[in-house]
Amino acid sequence: MRLAILGAGDVGRSVADLADEYGHEVVALADSTSAGIDPDGIDVDGALERKVGGDALGSSDPEDVFETAYDVLVEATPTTLGDAEPGFSHVERALEADRHVVLANKGPVAERYEELQALEADSAGSIRFEATVGGAIPVLSTIEDETPQAVTAVRGVLNGTANFILTRMAAEGLDYEHVLAEAQDLGVAEADPTFDVDGTDAALKFVILANVLAGGGFALEDATVEGIQSIPGSALDLASEDGRTIRLIGEATREDVRVGPRLVPENGALAVTGTRNIVQIETRHAGSLHSSGRGAGGPETATAVLSDVGRLPPL
Amino acid sequence: MRLAILGAGDVGRSVADLADEYGHEVVALADSTSAGIDPDGIDVDGALERKVGGDALGSSDPEDVFETAYDVLVEATPTTLGDAEPGFSHVERALEADRHVVLANKGPVAERYEELQALEADSAGSIRFEATVGGAIPVLSTIEDETPQAVTAVRGVLNGTANFILTRMAAEGLDYEHVLAEAQDLGVAEADPTFDVDGTDAALKFVILANVLAGGGFALEDATVEGIQSIPGSALDLASEDGRTIRLIGEATREDVRVGPRLVPENGALAVTGTRNIVQIETRHAGSLHSSGRGAGGPETATAVLSDVGRLPPL
Repeated sequence: MRLAILGAGDVGRSVADLADEYGHEVVALADSTSAGIDPDGIDVDGALERKVGGDALGSSDPEDVFETAYDVLVEATPTTLGDAEPGFSHVERALEADRHVVLANKGPVAERYEELQALEADSAGSIRFEATVGGAIPVLSTIEDETPQAVTAVRGVLNGTANFILTRMAAEGLDYEHVLAEAQDLGVAEADPTFDVDGTDAALKFVILANVLAGGGFALEDATVEGIQSIPGSALDLASEDGRTIRLIGEATREDVRVGPRLVPENGALAVTGTRNIVQIETRHAGSLHSSGRGAGGPETATAVLSDVGRLPPL
Repeated sequence: MRLAILGAGDVGRSVADLADEYGHEVVALADSTSAGIDPDGIDVDGALERKVGGDALGSSDPEDVFETAYDVLVEATPTTLGDAEPGFSHVERALEADRHVVLANKGPVAERYEELQALEADSAGSIRFEATVGGAIPVLSTIEDETPQAVTAVRGVLNGTANFILTRMAAEGLDYEHVLAEAQDLGVAEADPTFDVDGTDAALKFVILANVLAGGGFALEDATVEGIQSIPGSALDLASEDGRTIRLIGEATREDVRVGPRLVPENGALAVTGTRNIVQIETRHAGSLHSSGRGAGGPETATAVLSDVGRLPPL
């Protein structure tokens, strides 16, 4: 398939880098200020070098991407809340042009799910968004294959930054501020870590899961969310004396989305360590399926995008 | 899709039972001696009651199934080795009639993989076989979505009977013979448990995985296999003193298939308990994906069959 990639951060760049290995062609790669476009396939290495070197991706205007011949729009621009723009409009334009869309951007899927479904219903193109939940872990495709009706709940750890911080606090007996600084030094937490530590990032993912289970009806404002910023080191010590630890756990059902710190058994499945993520998918007929893996990262998330591309029907 | 189900054991009966919930119709259900056939959909409840009550499934001959109009042949007859008959011929007939095939029967996929691929290449129908590896756990679809080229190895616990026995031996300090008897009482081990405890069942699954990774080239005879029958209780005690335990672990790469008892960390991912299974899928770009869940059981395996049906293209 011919991919038009919007967004040249870690994910967009990794998708461009791996596309050839998965048998696809990159006809456009754009950030907010410039674009490399070539209907016969752009020079990916050249574009990536220029971007990483601080230069323009290419000589085209990002607007021109929509005039190019492509099969799949990869929406990998930064997640925005509320109206989820400009990502939502990008998706809308692609579907109105009867093209496929694969999202890594959580905004449109979390905040305007029913509108996306309506656009998809009127389009020859399909929307897929595995990369929005759990990075490399195949969560949404597993639910899709089980059929959403057969899944009763999804629970787990879907934010690696918060999980890393809690793991380190428990392991070293250090306080939150100290470990956050360490996480930022390592690149595990961003300069502005708010969405990771206040639970928003995890909540967006569980809102997306609830939308998939229930066929829509949820946005971020519907989630009950508590972050990890107020957990004292002493809470983890106390938990450990009882064979437990604390993790930022989310849960999505057809009725509800909740994210917050929870006590979990120290050696249990939910006590994943470091930046690892885990989901537990509760099913009607097959018990509980657990999937864990790397929940974030350029190449990791790109594999989810490219898995989705592989599952799209020909246009 | 219209399903013709061969095999009325736990898996075949569960597929028939759940088909309607997944939006499919059962036009035939057969065991080795009789068949219920109805182009408009059989009375599944009636057929299941008769079978469970010791009566014939229906008034037709199993041979007549191939004369029926169906979309997908579900091959759920008992796994056989070597020539994998009669399962292989069932698959052959369906593909030669340009019908799809979904297998729960491991024999043809483990022992005659390249022949199946050749039949599939000449057919309008496709073959899928998620149910042959790991029951409810979506192993093969995950590898398919990642693309087999991007997967370097698959490792894990894929036999619940052996895992249950080792779990109980470690937990209770009992010896193998004692726990095997307990497992048989519970229905976790069969009256003839050979294939489970000597590693053959696990080996068939890892042979299938190696065939998927390498595009063929493996049969059961190519696997290096060791079972659990010779493990003394003392070995587990010793292991425990070192924070480890023993599990029957298999590994498949493009070059090799091995199954045998291994020391693993007591609290590590591979030390699943009871009858639970786990696979670790090692990927080039996304690190290690772990999936665990129920590896066997009628409804559990049926969900894998029905997931496969859901991924088949229209004929």
